[in-house]
Amino acid sequence: MPKKPLILVTNDDGITAPGLRALIDVMNDLGDVVVVAPDSPQSGMGHAITIDSTLYIERVHIDDGKQIEYSCSGTPADCVKLAMSEILDRRPDLCVSGINHGSNSSINVIYSGTMSAALEAGIEGIPSIGFSLLDYNWNADFEATKPYAKSIAQNVLENGLIDGVVLNVNFPKLKPNDIKGVKICRQAKANWVEEFDKRSSPQGRDYYWLTGKFVNLDHGEDTDEWALKNGYVSVVPVQFDLTAHHCIQTLNTWDFNE
Amino acid sequence: MPKKPLILVTNDDGITAPGLRALIDVMNDLGDVVVVAPDSPQSGMGHAITIDSTLYIERVHIDDGKQIEYSCSGTPADCVKLAMSEILDRRPDLCVSGINHGSNSSINVIYSGTMSAALEAGIEGIPSIGFSLLDYNWNADFEATKPYAKSIAQNVLENGLIDGVVLNVNFPKLKPNDIKGVKICRQAKANWVEEFDKRSSPQGRDYYWLTGKFVNLDHGEDTDEWALKNGYVSVVPVQFDLTAHHCIQTLNTWDFNE
Repeated sequence: MPKKPLILVTNDDGITAPGLRALIDVMNDLGDVVVVAPDSPQSGMGHAITIDSTLYIERVHIDDGKQIEYSCSGTPADCVKLAMSEILDRRPDLCVSGINHGSNSSINVIYSGTMSAALEAGIEGIPSIGFSLLDYNWNADFEATKPYAKSIAQNVLENGLIDGVVLNVNFPKLKPNDIKGVKICRQAKANWVEEFDKRSSPQGRDYYWLTGKFVNLDHGEDTDEWALKNGYVSVVPVQFDLTAHHCIQTLNTWDFNE
Repeated sequence: MPKKPLILVTNDDGITAPGLRALIDVMNDLGDVVVVAPDSPQSGMGHAITIDSTLYIERVHIDDGKQIEYSCSGTPADCVKLAMSEILDRRPDLCVSGINHGSNSSINVIYSGTMSAALEAGIEGIPSIGFSLLDYNWNADFEATKPYAKSIAQNVLENGLIDGVVLNVNFPKLKPNDIKGVKICRQAKANWVEEFDKRSSPQGRDYYWLTGKFVNLDHGEDTDEWALKNGYVSVVPVQFDLTAHHCIQTLNTWDFNE
């Protein structure tokens, strides 16, 4: 019997998050699962790593699934680094991160702890996927996402991924029968228009809460935003070579010796 | 007389860092400078934003330069968002971040608070540059970097940057006469090999410090690592559309309906 694949599971909402539980449930069908996830929510942490403080790992038991689980005091990227270096006894065949409570489509990929874990594994050469559901609710219903998460993970296990690329998967907030299928997409051009909420403390000191409005500037029908709005699961291949190769020629015409 | 350019300056080492002081000094020659920088070091924060806590801004006076300065309790990306939304009365013509105490070349761009500030400004459509010196020392000598920082910033002010692209500039740790010039590069393929330092607390609990070794896997002579090793200032155009367009065709052959 061939060896079962080893699957590393992590997230950024913390080890007790229902989205992580749903992902573990799916992955238990596909291989031997080891979970290394933050002990508390880490959303908005981007690709943070802990270099100025100590890290703790603890073996934990959260539910009756057959996975092995560790909680970690660090960020999602820390969890992957610790898993690879200190916990796993062989290289995982797949790393999955999520399922995030909330969108990581379009420009959100940049701010995403979920995707930073997937990217970290990708940098280490592990085929890797980040999953997110467009529902910020802690009690969001992940049932509709499960067959798609399974099918996408199976494809990655069977086909592998091109070196330097990880997948950013987002699920629309829809009932199972209303999801139309999977669409391979590019990242939509979008940004957040900040609207800071300025308040005054009881001591009279001004402070701010970051709020904002997501603005999609991209009307392409090949984008993740279009796919999600039209009932599809979006899959964007994401790379961590950030070089804008199309600019190099222009920059070479500049004169730096003025 | 034409209006002077408005230049937003930030960093991730904190508002008192010598590297920031050097960058302010250069930018004061080129325009009207407003500094909005973290009140404490934020290295390794990646593209973190503060969504679960309050943000404070304070007008401060650090040295006798003609710049206006604010310190902020948030991350580098928060500083840019607050500057654009709450502090500046018009859009800046340029945003510069740094000069970082330590390298942000190659894969380090992913973990970099310095570059996250530059990317944040880029996402908002502001021509933007991150600067870093290959010297982690707090008392590093930034003199040799100044003429190059000035010339690169002048080029960006005059020529602009292609939409969706910011510059990642790294300086070798060399004396002025030993720097050979500026090279436009691509990001070298590299990673960190983690070597966690496992220790035991006085109470007997195991903990870890993240350490590691940078491994350059890329022998191309068009990379930032090559340029820096050979005495050049490296300039990599960096994009925040992370789509790996070259993978889309392959992914479209996958079957998700098993």
